[in-house]
Amino acid sequence: MNTSTVFGIHALRSLLQRAPTRVRRLMIDSKREDARIRELLQLAQAAGVKTERVDAKAIAGRVGEVTHQGVIAEVESLPAWQEADLLQALTSQRNPLVLLLDGVQDPHNLGACLRTADACGALAVVVPKDRAAGMNPTVRKVAAGAAETTPLVSVTNLSRSMKLLKEAGLWIAGADMAGEKMAWQADLGGALALVMGSEGEGLRDLTRRHCDFLVRLPQVGSVESLNVSVACGMLLYEAQRQREAAPSRRS
Amino acid sequence: MNTSTVFGIHALRSLLQRAPTRVRRLMIDSKREDARIRELLQLAQAAGVKTERVDAKAIAGRVGEVTHQGVIAEVESLPAWQEADLLQALTSQRNPLVLLLDGVQDPHNLGACLRTADACGALAVVVPKDRAAGMNPTVRKVAAGAAETTPLVSVTNLSRSMKLLKEAGLWIAGADMAGEKMAWQADLGGALALVMGSEGEGLRDLTRRHCDFLVRLPQVGSVESLNVSVACGMLLYEAQRQREAAPSRRS
Repeated sequence: MNTSTVFGIHALRSLLQRAPTRVRRLMIDSKREDARIRELLQLAQAAGVKTERVDAKAIAGRVGEVTHQGVIAEVESLPAWQEADLLQALTSQRNPLVLLLDGVQDPHNLGACLRTADACGALAVVVPKDRAAGMNPTVRKVAAGAAETTPLVSVTNLSRSMKLLKEAGLWIAGADMAGEKMAWQADLGGALALVMGSEGEGLRDLTRRHCDFLVRLPQVGSVESLNVSVACGMLLYEAQRQREAAPSRRS
Repeated sequence: MNTSTVFGIHALRSLLQRAPTRVRRLMIDSKREDARIRELLQLAQAAGVKTERVDAKAIAGRVGEVTHQGVIAEVESLPAWQEADLLQALTSQRNPLVLLLDGVQDPHNLGACLRTADACGALAVVVPKDRAAGMNPTVRKVAAGAAETTPLVSVTNLSRSMKLLKEAGLWIAGADMAGEKMAWQADLGGALALVMGSEGEGLRDLTRRHCDFLVRLPQVGSVESLNVSVACGMLLYEAQRQREAAPSRRS
């Protein structure tokens, strides 16, 4: 089993609450002592997780200049999901949100999308095995912990996965500049798969045809397109806004 | 006067319509011929812009692997704005939107924020002169043309600029995880300055105190924070959504 380093109070509290058996070792800056640190220590103790007080330099040496807040942990990496794991997990959520990336090439963009997917409560991120970025150390680093909590599902045939998601009751919304509605005009509040195209090309024709509807994002200026991880952030934000702010018109 | 290379049909149509005198030379792939190319040629002719048909390789050699759609142009760089230029420009817009970045360090993040600011109709992006990324070739490249259309205003004292923006009638909304409202619960539809903190640290205390209100973004998962350019995209999206979808409760 591979391990990864996860940092930050919020991220580690979340892991200790949701998946304590995956936390191998918690390391805390020996100078840190406050209510949030005590809560982490209690959670670790309750879960039988080994805890060490370490020097601030030891922490910086492992994770570099990030907002680690004096706490890091060695965590068992999240196992890669198969398509079947995703379909199984869908049955446990009321209005699941899944992100599909149709050929994103840049590991930084994949990492950023994973990070945002986690923040917006997406169940998983689906990518094609071929001609697309997959999990690697750069993705893991840019994802800032999300690679340890939000599963990445590499599939052989994205169109087939879209059909299976439809059969599982999800609507498929593609991001496309030719979309008939702005994102906020579409119903993104129910069981939903959001599909983003690649950096230069957008959605492939075959992918576009498998979408139930296409949505646009703001484009009132001069630039040709949005960065894919920014566009992904806007759509996941909108889906989460509709989940929290307004009930779905479909549910 | 410095020049930059701008690419893409949408970007160049926009420049030829809004600022034709800044376009020095338009270059079009000699194999491209369709209605959108003809429209560009007409706009260029009407504005007296020199046009050349060139080889596809000559275009790729200048801009690399981007979605240039067979059209590029040499464009006079946008002059840097002073604070006074910004205050002057504010008077010409009904509900101006301005983006302030409080110490963003990474040129990629600054470029991405400029690109999104352009797409969402922001009037300008304001950054402090010290301890923050400023305009450079990396920023220009990542901004994908937005550096030629959305002015960057480098200011000596960000707090002073915030006061001046308030006096000009703008509300100041800061992005902060401790914000009292979610972004969609706040009124972002009127004259507004959005303030984003730096990558690791968020808003500085002084900056936070100058905000009229603070808004949160989705954070339902495990990660500690959102990437600054993604968070910026969500807030600019929300501001633009409120502008287009619902009238401001303040106007």
